[in-house]
Amino acid sequence: MIRRLVSECAGTAFLLAIVIGSGIMGERLAGGNVAIALLGNTIATGAGLVVLIHMFGPVSGAHFNPAVTLAFLLRRDIGRPAAAGYVAAQLVGAVLGVWVAHAMFAEPLWQVSTKLRPGPAQGFAECVATFGLLGTILGTQRARPDFTPVAVGLYITAAYWFTASTSFANPAVTIARSLSDSFAGIAPASVPLFIGGQLLGMLAALGFFAWLFKEDRPQ
Amino acid sequence: MIRRLVSECAGTAFLLAIVIGSGIMGERLAGGNVAIALLGNTIATGAGLVVLIHMFGPVSGAHFNPAVTLAFLLRRDIGRPAAAGYVAAQLVGAVLGVWVAHAMFAEPLWQVSTKLRPGPAQGFAECVATFGLLGTILGTQRARPDFTPVAVGLYITAAYWFTASTSFANPAVTIARSLSDSFAGIAPASVPLFIGGQLLGMLAALGFFAWLFKEDRPQ
Amino acid sequence: MIRRLVSECAGTAFLLAIVIGSGIMGERLAGGNVAIALLGNTIATGAGLVVLIHMFGPVSGAHFNPAVTLAFLLRRDIGRPAAAGYVAAQLVGAVLGVWVAHAMFAEPLWQVSTKLRPGPAQGFAECVATFGLLGTILGTQRARPDFTPVAVGLYITAAYWFTASTSFANPAVTIARSLSDSFAGIAPASVPLFIGGQLLGMLAALGFFAWLFKEDRPQ
Amino acid sequence: MIRRLVSECAGTAFLLAIVIGSGIMGERLAGGNVAIALLGNTIATGAGLVVLIHMFGPVSGAHFNPAVTLAFLLRRDIGRPAAAGYVAAQLVGAVLGVWVAHAMFAEPLWQVSTKLRPGPAQGFAECVATFGLLGTILGTQRARPDFTPVAVGLYITAAYWFTASTSFANPAVTIARSLSDSFAGIAPASVPLFIGGQLLGMLAALGFFAWLFKEDRPQ
Repeated sequence: MIRRLVSECAGTAFLLAIVIGSGIMGERLAGGNVAIALLGNTIATGAGLVVLIHMFGPVSGAHFNPAVTLAFLLRRDIGRPAAAGYVAAQLVGAVLGVWVAHAMFAEPLWQVSTKLRPGPAQGFAECVATFGLLGTILGTQRARPDFTPVAVGLYITAAYWFTASTSFANPAVTIARSLSDSFAGIAPASVPLFIGGQLLGMLAALGFFAWLFKEDRPQ
Repeated sequence: MIRRLVSECAGTAFLLAIVIGSGIMGERLAGGNVAIALLGNTIATGAGLVVLIHMFGPVSGAHFNPAVTLAFLLRRDIGRPAAAGYVAAQLVGAVLGVWVAHAMFAEPLWQVSTKLRPGPAQGFAECVATFGLLGTILGTQRARPDFTPVAVGLYITAAYWFTASTSFANPAVTIARSLSDSFAGIAPASVPLFIGGQLLGMLAALGFFAWLFKEDRPQ
Repeated sequence: MIRRLVSECAGTAFLLAIVIGSGIMGERLAGGNVAIALLGNTIATGAGLVVLIHMFGPVSGAHFNPAVTLAFLLRRDIGRPAAAGYVAAQLVGAVLGVWVAHAMFAEPLWQVSTKLRPGPAQGFAECVATFGLLGTILGTQRARPDFTPVAVGLYITAAYWFTASTSFANPAVTIARSLSDSFAGIAPASVPLFIGGQLLGMLAALGFFAWLFKEDRPQ
Repeated sequence: MIRRLVSECAGTAFLLAIVIGSGIMGERLAGGNVAIALLGNTIATGAGLVVLIHMFGPVSGAHFNPAVTLAFLLRRDIGRPAAAGYVAAQLVGAVLGVWVAHAMFAEPLWQVSTKLRPGPAQGFAECVATFGLLGTILGTQRARPDFTPVAVGLYITAAYWFTASTSFANPAVTIARSLSDSFAGIAPASVPLFIGGQLLGMLAALGFFAWLFKEDRPQ
C-alpha cells in the first residue's frame, strides 16, 4: 500500500508541476496573448497526463484525482481505507507539485491566488468537465482499457478549451491551484464552487454512464 | 435501441459543446488573431472527437452525423427505422450541445448566427470535406477498424485548415451551429449550401471508395 | 493496376489540397505572423498524411512521392512499368490537388509561384529532409510496419520546422507547388535545386540505411 | 558494435538538427513572440523524437543521451566499454547535428552561445526534467515497452513548457547547444550547472523508481 500511496502522491505532484509550470512559462513568454499561453499550457498538460498515467498506472491506477477515487469507491472498485489514503496522498502531492513549479521558476513557494473565477456558469462548466472526464474513463476502461491514458490526455486537451473554466475537473488540483498566484491559479473564494460542480458532475456521470454502458454493478 | 439513440444524442451534444465552446474560448482569448483562435478550436475538436468515438462507438457506432448515417443506410449497414432515429437523435443532441456551450460561457442560450459563409467555393469546400471524411471512415474501417476513431480526429484536424469552409462536413452540426452567434456559427441563409455540398460529397465518396476498395456490397 | 494508379493519384491530390489549402488558410488568418501560419500548415499536413497513408496504403502503398517510388525501384520492391505509372499518377494528382485547393478558396486555378527559395543551403535542407524521410520509412517498415503512417506524419511535422526549406522532400509536390502563388508555393526557378537535393538525399539514405539496418537486398 | 555506435551518432545528430533547426525557424518567423517560437520548437522536437527512437531503437536502443546511457550502466544493462563508446558517439553526433542545422539555415558552422541560463532554479529545473525523463523510460519500459518512444516524445513536449529551463535533460545536448548562438543555445558558463542538475536528477530517479517499480536489480 505504501508504494501505491507514494505513486498517487508523486503522480499528482508531477501533474501540478506541469499545470502550474507550463502556465507560468506561457504567461512569461506569450507577451499578453492569453490564447497562446493557453495553447502551451494545454499541450503540456495533455502530453504530460498521457505519460504520467502510463508511468504510475501499473502501480496505483493513476487516479491523481479525489473525484475519480470517490467514483471508484461508490462503484466498490476500491475500499474505504485505500480511498481515504489515496485522497490524502493526492492532496499532499498536489501541493508539493505547486511548490516544485514555483522553485523551478524562482518564485516564492508560498502564494495564494487572487484570480477569482466566479459565477454559476463556471460551476456548471466544472460539472460538465468532470462529467466528461468520468465518461472518458468509464467508457474506455470498458471497451479499450489500454487506450484510457491517451483518452484522458486528449479529453483534458479538449476540455481546457471547450469548458469556460478551462476544466480543473479535480478537487485536489483545484485546492492546490489556489496556492499559486499565476496563470493557472484560482482564488480560494472560488474553490467551493468548483469542487461542488465537480462532485455533481461525477455523480451524474456515475448514474448516466452506468446505465448507458449497461453495467450491473452497484453504484 | 433507446441506449443507442441516447448515445448518438449525447455524443453529438458533446461534439457541439466542444466545437462551439472552444470557438468562444478562442475568440475571447486570441485578441483578434483568428488563426490562433482556429488553432485552439482545431486542437479541441480533433482531440475531443477521438475520445467521443471511443466512448460512444461501442454503443451506437458513434456516427454523430446524418451524412454518415445516410451513407450507412445506402450501404445497407443500418435499417431505415434505426437511421431515422439516429438522425433525429443527432439533431436534438447537436442543439442541446450548443446550449450547453452557451450556458458554460454565460451567453444567452438562444442565438441565431449572423456569420454568412456564402458562395459556390464554400459549397465545394464542404463537398470536398465530406468526401474526405467518408473516405477516412470507409478506408480505415476496412483495413484497420481500431484506428478509425483516431483517423477521424486527425482528418478533422487537417480539414479545419485545408478546406475554405473549416470543414463542417455534417448536416446536424451545420444546423446547430446556425444557432450560435459566435466564432463557429453559420448564418441560416448559408445552411442549405453547406448541407447540399455535404450530401453531394457523401454520395461521390460512396461511389468512388466502393470502387477503389473493391467492395461488392450494394450501394 | 488501374486502382493502384488511381489510389496514388487521389492520395497525392489530397496531400496537395491539404498543403496548399492550409497554407492559404494560415496566410489569410494569421495577420502577417508567418510562424502561426506555419503552425496551422504543419498540423494540417502532419495529421492529414497519417490519415491518407492509412486510407490509400492498403491499395497502392501510399507512396505519393516519386522519390519514394524511385527508391523502391532501386531496391527492386517495385517493377519499372509500375514505377513509371506511379510517378505519372503522382504528378497528375499533385497538380489536380493544387487546383482543388484553389477552387475551394475561390482563387484562380492557374497560377505560377513567384516565391524564390534560392541558394545552396536550401538545396542542402531538401537533401537532409529527404534523407530523413527515407530513413523514417525504411526504419519503421522493417521493425514496426504498422507504425509507418504515423511515423511519416510525425516526421513531416518535425521537418516543416527543422529544415530551412520547410521540407518539400517530394519532387511531385515540388513541381505542383510551383503552380500556386500562395504561402506554400515555390518559384519554378527554384524547382531544379529542390529536386536535385531530394534525389541526392534519397540515394544517400538508400546506401546509409541499407547498411545500418543490415539488409542484404540489392540497392 | 560499429553499427550501434553509428546509430547513436546519427540519431543524436538528427535530434540536435531538429532542436537547433526548429529553434532558428521559430525565431526567424515568430516576429519576437517567444511563446510561438517555443511552440514550433516543441512540436518539432516531440514529433521528431518519437520518429528517431522508432528508427534507431532496434539498432542501438536509441539512448541519444549520456545520462540515459550512464543510468543503464549503473543498472548493469550495458557494459562499460559499450557505454563509453555510446557517450562518445552521442557527443560527436550532437555537435555534427548542430552544424547540419547551421548549414541548412546558411549560418556560420562554428558559433558559441551567449545566452546565459544562470541560477540555482535553472539547475533544479534540469534536475526535475531529467528525473521525469528517467521515470518515463523506466516506467514504460517495464509495463509497455512498445509505448516508450511515444512516451519520451510526449514527456519532452510537456517538459519544454513546464520546466523553467525548457528541459535540456541531456549532457550531450547541453554541450552541443553551447555551440549555437541561436534560440536553443546555452552559454558555456551555464553548461556545468545544467549537467550537474541532470546527473543529480538521473541518480535520484534510479533510486526512486527502482523502489517504486519494485525491481530487485542492482543499482
